[in-house]
Amino acid sequence: MDLHRLTRELHVNNTTKIVMYVGDGLGGLPQQPGGRTELETANTPNLDALAKAGVLGSSIPVCPGISPGSGPGHLGLFGYDPLQYMIGRGALEATGIGFALQEGDVAIRANFCTLDSQGNISDRRAGRIPTEESAPLAVRLRNVTIPGIEIFVEPVKEHRFVVVLRGQGLHGNVQDTDPQITGVPPLDAVATDAQSKKAADVAKEFIRQARKLLGGELKANGLTLRGFSGKPQLPSYEEVYGLKAAAIAVYPMYKGLARLVGMDIVGNAQTLAEQMTVLEQNWSKYDFFFIHYKYTDSTGEDGDFDAKVKRTEEFDAAVPRITALRPDVLIVTGDHSTPSMLASHSWHPVPTLLSAKFCRTDGCERFGESECLRGGLGQFEAKYLMTLALANARRLGKFGA
Amino acid sequence: MDLHRLTRELHVNNTTKIVMYVGDGLGGLPQQPGGRTELETANTPNLDALAKAGVLGSSIPVCPGISPGSGPGHLGLFGYDPLQYMIGRGALEATGIGFALQEGDVAIRANFCTLDSQGNISDRRAGRIPTEESAPLAVRLRNVTIPGIEIFVEPVKEHRFVVVLRGQGLHGNVQDTDPQITGVPPLDAVATDAQSKKAADVAKEFIRQARKLLGGELKANGLTLRGFSGKPQLPSYEEVYGLKAAAIAVYPMYKGLARLVGMDIVGNAQTLAEQMTVLEQNWSKYDFFFIHYKYTDSTGEDGDFDAKVKRTEEFDAAVPRITALRPDVLIVTGDHSTPSMLASHSWHPVPTLLSAKFCRTDGCERFGESECLRGGLGQFEAKYLMTLALANARRLGKFGA
Repeated sequence: MDLHRLTRELHVNNTTKIVMYVGDGLGGLPQQPGGRTELETANTPNLDALAKAGVLGSSIPVCPGISPGSGPGHLGLFGYDPLQYMIGRGALEATGIGFALQEGDVAIRANFCTLDSQGNISDRRAGRIPTEESAPLAVRLRNVTIPGIEIFVEPVKEHRFVVVLRGQGLHGNVQDTDPQITGVPPLDAVATDAQSKKAADVAKEFIRQARKLLGGELKANGLTLRGFSGKPQLPSYEEVYGLKAAAIAVYPMYKGLARLVGMDIVGNAQTLAEQMTVLEQNWSKYDFFFIHYKYTDSTGEDGDFDAKVKRTEEFDAAVPRITALRPDVLIVTGDHSTPSMLASHSWHPVPTLLSAKFCRTDGCERFGESECLRGGLGQFEAKYLMTLALANARRLGKFGA
Repeated sequence: MDLHRLTRELHVNNTTKIVMYVGDGLGGLPQQPGGRTELETANTPNLDALAKAGVLGSSIPVCPGISPGSGPGHLGLFGYDPLQYMIGRGALEATGIGFALQEGDVAIRANFCTLDSQGNISDRRAGRIPTEESAPLAVRLRNVTIPGIEIFVEPVKEHRFVVVLRGQGLHGNVQDTDPQITGVPPLDAVATDAQSKKAADVAKEFIRQARKLLGGELKANGLTLRGFSGKPQLPSYEEVYGLKAAAIAVYPMYKGLARLVGMDIVGNAQTLAEQMTVLEQNWSKYDFFFIHYKYTDSTGEDGDFDAKVKRTEEFDAAVPRITALRPDVLIVTGDHSTPSMLASHSWHPVPTLLSAKFCRTDGCERFGESECLRGGLGQFEAKYLMTLALANARRLGKFGA
C-alpha cells in the first residue's frame, strides 16, 4: 500500500510547523537484562517533560527483526516505505559524501585494489591505503576522458572512492567488477539488461584509462567498481505532503538523504548548538524541519555505553531551543537502535515521542524504551510517523466522505 | 511484501541454535470474564522464569479476527505469510496423514457417500461409516488402474479418504464433485483451466472404476472428490533462512507441515519426554528445532478447561530439558488459541515468549495472556517471529547501507 496515495490526496495547507528531531541510533539495551538502557540512564529532563505532555510509542524501522542501515532507516522516518524505495549502494555512497545526483546519473562505489604482475588481485583494498595517499589518486582519475560522458571521481576514505557517470542513455543495471576474492583478475563490467549496455561500455573504458593512470603505483595500481545505481526515484516532500521542508544536519550522508526527498539543506552547522541557531534563523521559511544528531549512533557503534549516555544528555539539552519556537508538532525519535552492547545497528524498536496539542496523551512519565512500551502510539512502523505528524499538524483532510 | 526477499538476502551463517517450542492452541480464555485463562491458571514455573528473562508479546496468526486452521497457523509461525501461501485442501489432507507429496502430484479429499437406485446422493457421508469398515474399502480402491497414472488411495477416518494422482501433466484446478446437497447425483469432475483437463479426465475414470469396485456396498457405494490441489510451492528453510531445520512432532499433520518447508522429520517420539530425547540426540546436527506439542489444543477442542491446564503444566515441565541445551534463541508460542470455553480454534492473539541474550526484556514476570499484553514484542503478526528469531540469533545482516 502506497501511503503517499493518501497523503497526496488528503494534505491541506496551513501555517503549522513540524519538527522531527532525530537522535541517530537512539534506541539501546541495558548492560544487564532488566537494567536501564542508555536513554533510560541518561538524565533527560527536557525529553521527560515532553513525554509527559505528549504521546509515546515504539517505532519499527522496517519490520520486526530487521536492522536497517542509515538509508532505509531515514526513508522510514521520512514516510517512504523502505521496502518499496530502495537506494542503490552507489547512489547511497555518492549521497553520503554530499554528491547531488541528477536524473540519469549512474553512481558507482569504487575501490582501489592491488594487482600482481599477472593482473590478478592480490589485495582487494590496496592495503587499506590511507586517505592522504588515496585521495590524490582519485583526483588523478579525473583525467579519464570519454566523449559524451561527464565523469566525476570523488575520494571517500582509504581505498574507497565514488565514480559518477553523467550522459545520455546511461542506466545502472551493471554487475560488480569486484570478484570478492583474491588471486583472480577483476571481472568485466557486464550489463544485465540491454539499456545498461552503454554504461557497461563506459565503465570498461574508465577502467582501462584508470589502470594506465595508476600504472606506476605500488599499492593502488588497480580498481574495482560496485553497486552501479541511478538516482533513486523519490517523490518530494512538497509533492506528497505539501510541505516545504528543511534539513539541518552536520554529516553529508543525512544531508544527502534529505536532499533525495526534496528537502532544502540549510545552514552549515558543525555543532548541535549551531544547528539550533540555523533552526531559529530559518523558522519562518519552512513548514517542516528535520534535525539530525549523529553522536547517539557513533557512541553506540563504538560500544561505549557511558559516552552514549552523555551524548543523549547533550541531545536532551538542546530541546528547549526547539520548544521555545513553539512547534505545533515535535517528534523525537531515531532511525534505528544502536545499542552499545552490540556496537552496531540493531532490530530493536526505537523510542519515539510525539508532542502536539491534540495528540491524546497516555500517562507516560519519562522518555525511555520501557515507558514507550506503554505508550499511546503502540508499536508502529516508522513510515506512519509522517501521517501522524501531518494529522497532528491538522494538515490532513478526512479520507472518504 | 515478501519477507523472504529480505531473509534470503540478509541471512548469514553462524553456530547459533534456535528452538521454537509450540503448544498447539496455546492461547485461551478465562471461564468468567476477568478470570484467569488456562495458561494463567496452570502452574508454569519454567515458562515464568523464561518470561522474566525474555520478552513477551501477542502473536496474531493471520490477521485480527481470523481463526486459523493448523495449516495457516503453522505457516505463520514458520514465517510464510499464510495469506500468500495457501495449502489446498487436498494437499493439507494428504499432509495430515503423513503422505509425502511430490512436485506434480494432485491430492484430493475423497468422501464415501451413499447413492440411491437412481444414482442420487442419499447420504453425503455414507452414514458416517466407521473407520474399521471404510478403511478396507479405501484399500480396495487401490485396484483402480489408469495407464500412465500412479494412484494412491489412503484411508483417513470414517467416510474420509485421500486420493493422490501422480503422472505427467496433471494440474489441480478441478471443481469439487460433491454437490453439497442430497437428492442429486455427484457432479462431474470439471477442469477450470485447460492444463487441468487431464486431471479431470483421470478423476472421472477413477470415479467410474471406483463405483464398480464399490458396487455391492450398502452404505459406501459411491464417492465424491473435493479440494483438488497440487503440492504447495513453499521455498525451504535452507533457502530462505539458511537454516538446517528439524521437526520433532508426534502427529502426522505437523510433521507434514514441517516437511513442506523442508524441515527434516527426526525421531519417532510418541511422548513429550521422547521428543526431548530426540532433541538432545539431534542437537549438534541442526540450527533450528520445531517442537510440536498437541494436547494444549486437543483438550481445548474438548472444551475441558482443567485438562488443558494440566496439559499446559506438562508442556511447562519439559522446558528444563530444552534450556539445559542452552539454545541461543528459545521461542515459546502456539499456532493459534483454542479456548476451552469455545471448544474450537479462535482468533485471539497467542501468548508468545522470546528468550535470547539481546532480546531487550520488558519487565514482565509471568507467561500468560494478560502479561503478554504488556510485553516488548507488542502485538505482531506471527510471520515476523522468524525474522525476530534470526535477528536474535545474530543470523541477519543489516538491510541497506
